[in-house]
Amino acid sequence: MIQPTRAYRFAVNVTPKPGILDPQGKAVERSLPHLAISGVSEVRVGRRVELAVEAPDASSARAVVDRLARELLSNPLMEQYEVETLDAAAAVASGAAG
Amino acid sequence: MIQPTRAYRFAVNVTPKPGILDPQGKAVERSLPHLAISGVSEVRVGRRVELAVEAPDASSARAVVDRLARELLSNPLMEQYEVETLDAAAAVASGAAG
Repeated sequence: MIQPTRAYRFAVNVTPKPGILDPQGKAVERSLPHLAISGVSEVRVGRRVELAVEAPDASSARAVVDRLARELLSNPLMEQYEVETLDAAAAVASGAAG
Repeated sequence: MIQPTRAYRFAVNVTPKPGILDPQGKAVERSLPHLAISGVSEVRVGRRVELAVEAPDASSARAVVDRLARELLSNPLMEQYEVETLDAAAAVASGAAG
């Protein structure tokens, strides 16, 4: 018997750890005067990875995303990550038959 | 009289528009078999920019972020963005005197 699966959507937000230098963030801050924007500070630039996971249930899907985030998407020395659950719209659309 | 301001925190999530080729996302997908991860698809890699804005109220802070996202952080031809309001912890900590 094949176990039914469905698609779960997630986003992984990878950001520089506090205290780690962020040259991209500094570059954004230095561009602000050229755009006449003031009052903006603490700019940190990271990555956002959105993806779908086919799995039998939400917790196994989440386990796959955690492993992916830890082993491929982030550099644990310099970066931290946070997993966000996205709307289930896509999941319903591609829902597998029971 | 100086108008009191406080800090508002936001994240800007910039992702490739649907239909736009995303070579970074494809590279992640091609790495999955090496990690023995299966069931992951539709990987899209974008940027996440977190920042603080000093402003008299939430809606003027939001207007600054929208302009920044549109004019500096995203390429409107190939990317879309979404502004997320972050927790107000930092805002309270740096709250200006009334």
